[in-house]
Amino acid sequence: MTDIKRTTIVLFSGDYDKAMAAYIIANGAAAYDHEVTIFHTFWGLNALRKDEDIQVKKSFMEKMFGKMMPRGAEKMGLSKMNFAGFGPKMIKDVMKKHNAIPLINLIEMAQEQNVKLVACTMTMDLLGLQQNELLDNIEFAGVAAYLADAEEGNVNLFI
Amino acid sequence: MTDIKRTTIVLFSGDYDKAMAAYIIANGAAAYDHEVTIFHTFWGLNALRKDEDIQVKKSFMEKMFGKMMPRGAEKMGLSKMNFAGFGPKMIKDVMKKHNAIPLINLIEMAQEQNVKLVACTMTMDLLGLQQNELLDNIEFAGVAAYLADAEEGNVNLFI
Amino acid sequence: MTDIKRTTIVLFSGDYDKAMAAYIIANGAAAYDHEVTIFHTFWGLNALRKDEDIQVKKSFMEKMFGKMMPRGAEKMGLSKMNFAGFGPKMIKDVMKKHNAIPLINLIEMAQEQNVKLVACTMTMDLLGLQQNELLDNIEFAGVAAYLADAEEGNVNLFI
Repeated sequence: MTDIKRTTIVLFSGDYDKAMAAYIIANGAAAYDHEVTIFHTFWGLNALRKDEDIQVKKSFMEKMFGKMMPRGAEKMGLSKMNFAGFGPKMIKDVMKKHNAIPLINLIEMAQEQNVKLVACTMTMDLLGLQQNELLDNIEFAGVAAYLADAEEGNVNLFI
Repeated sequence: MTDIKRTTIVLFSGDYDKAMAAYIIANGAAAYDHEVTIFHTFWGLNALRKDEDIQVKKSFMEKMFGKMMPRGAEKMGLSKMNFAGFGPKMIKDVMKKHNAIPLINLIEMAQEQNVKLVACTMTMDLLGLQQNELLDNIEFAGVAAYLADAEEGNVNLFI
Repeated sequence: MTDIKRTTIVLFSGDYDKAMAAYIIANGAAAYDHEVTIFHTFWGLNALRKDEDIQVKKSFMEKMFGKMMPRGAEKMGLSKMNFAGFGPKMIKDVMKKHNAIPLINLIEMAQEQNVKLVACTMTMDLLGLQQNELLDNIEFAGVAAYLADAEEGNVNLFI
């Protein structure tokens, strides 16, 4: 273990509130000089989707997944009290009132703080997501790269 | 890293079964002389709510959250097989039969073992929870305090 | 902390996709010479169930749990987009197309790589699961054994 502190988060969840928690911890850790990686896999990839409809060639099943999954951070639902999509609006109203930072801006902030945002290539394949559908300036890697980061640090979370 | 062993758990979930897992691990670690912190954030704060109705001034939205969220550990639902609230009763019947310890007593036990119970102030704000609505003898802090504990240990879990 | 790298995963979830993530990380870590333990607790025990109906003496409640919970890895549902059981079929079709490895084979692979698969005895009791209902060549232990493994390593995940 080196002297550099390191925080590595697997973001598996596609829930708005869980992704918020991941990015709040990541931004906090970056502010305290940790080297921080967020490895987005499965539904967590949705946090990295661009919100426009990118035209790419897809199979029927990939198109279905593409349509059913939220397109970008601000379209994600809540893990609790989602109320058919009304919950996120409630949370966002409350967040606005308390000057809390929306997820999409937490992601921007993470990029500015050099948090390494990684998209898991294996699950991109499975869900039919292509590189140009995801945000710019992210990395693409697999579980080996995740482990290489994780084994160097001690704050390792699966969210 | 110091010689003292340390376990730090983020309890994000408001599910009875997940909170049980968190407190069982915490109590186990405390018994093995770890310094243990449970940092309650988002729905995990509900585990710390007093079960009576505390009169505090709240906005309309805060009142709604307050009413919809479970008031205390024993009111929480299950992450699986909740069956509109019947699941928790089933689990509790089975727990009783096997002399397993209910969550509310696991929390007491944790306090007796000096597990540090922390309520995340940022999400208390968001959900409109006030200090006197939560259990006595807990701490109030933010993500910086969480990271300060987490970076000193290696058993770091997000539940 | 010893020089041997160690990855310890608590598999709490009974979701097919989360269990896949756990086993993909475990197999990756084993390939990189980590000593790996997966501690199956609560609904995560279902990943270890044999798919046949084993005749054992059970109470009424235990029988109910036994019937309602998925019997083995390939019967588990998804954490997102489960669509009353249609989601897992979609995912498995897509996995087949991409030559991704089904969960049941990821578990076999883990056993071949000497990943230590542990069933949590306390939650086996609660859910009424008996040793001969679970896969062969797994271990049976409690939270103390989990902590003994976890405190020696730094990649500690709760899934």
